[in-house]
Amino acid sequence: MQLLKDRILKDGIVKPGNILKVDSFLNHQMDITLINEIGKEFKRRFSDCPITKILTIEASGIGIACITAQYFNVPVVFAKKAQSLNLDGEMYITKIESFTHKKVYDVILSKKFLGPDDHVLLIDDFLANGCALLGLIDIVRESGATLEGAGIVIEKGFQKGGQQIRDMGIRLESLAIIDSMSDNSLVFRD
Amino acid sequence: MQLLKDRILKDGIVKPGNILKVDSFLNHQMDITLINEIGKEFKRRFSDCPITKILTIEASGIGIACITAQYFNVPVVFAKKAQSLNLDGEMYITKIESFTHKKVYDVILSKKFLGPDDHVLLIDDFLANGCALLGLIDIVRESGATLEGAGIVIEKGFQKGGQQIRDMGIRLESLAIIDSMSDNSLVFRD
Repeated sequence: MQLLKDRILKDGIVKPGNILKVDSFLNHQMDITLINEIGKEFKRRFSDCPITKILTIEASGIGIACITAQYFNVPVVFAKKAQSLNLDGEMYITKIESFTHKKVYDVILSKKFLGPDDHVLLIDDFLANGCALLGLIDIVRESGATLEGAGIVIEKGFQKGGQQIRDMGIRLESLAIIDSMSDNSLVFRD
Repeated sequence: MQLLKDRILKDGIVKPGNILKVDSFLNHQMDITLINEIGKEFKRRFSDCPITKILTIEASGIGIACITAQYFNVPVVFAKKAQSLNLDGEMYITKIESFTHKKVYDVILSKKFLGPDDHVLLIDDFLANGCALLGLIDIVRESGATLEGAGIVIEKGFQKGGQQIRDMGIRLESLAIIDSMSDNSLVFRD
């Protein structure tokens, strides 16, 4: 998606440790006009899929998922990190390791909101090691829903997550895949 | 907002401890059609304000803020709970106490994304004790921005937050205010 790649080149900042900061438009401040174009692009790429729900994980995936859901006319469900007193009843539970925060979370989703009749599109802002996405895939499998695919805004193509998920036979659409990055350059996959 | 009140009566569940669960449409599963109507209503109520940014706090405020932002044509900025390795540079920092999770969070916002030229609308899903909203108000004051007001989806009118914030002279628009609730009844303020 050229609009996104141009924005990453213009406003993305590469930091030591293979960190790409896009917090001025994607995951701290959010440029809603850009995210609307991202939502339209996900709809274009998954227009052949009978999506009934968009599943994401808190926190930075939620806004992108909500904007995208408007183009599919479906609800969003977001998995929560750590136990909440307000969540009771039966839950799907999995564990994910956060690269950013260097810790392991329990991730939970109420069983009420995902079941065998659902056709699920996963949405998230970043894919690097794939831990968050693998956690969501676990939850979809446990629910018996059909996983139609995953839409990612930015994939770090030089980390293992994308390859691992494609090798599982899952349809993965990343709007910008970065093959290498350094202080001076940022190379996108064609 | 009658559509919202009707939905709370239909799908809200009152739990012991003055907990109102609206997780089937607002803060776990999200009914995007309803949230679009909520966004339009916030725009109607704050149409006289020169809003430049919508500020919310992760996680459940983000989706509502993003949908609402489309009607104001402004970016969303969300404050983050706890330190993230990806957030460097100067930050506004405040503390909030979570009623739901029974703990105190550091809440941070990058100084890059809020300053004296901004006119801010705060958006959140719930207002009860007011801790989250007071934290966001702190951040706005520290930034030198103009606080235009706060838009809340559901206010628990029998808890102190709403009164406290109105007493500070802040314009607070809650789309549904609950004056009392029990297993058998839920009373809205007119």
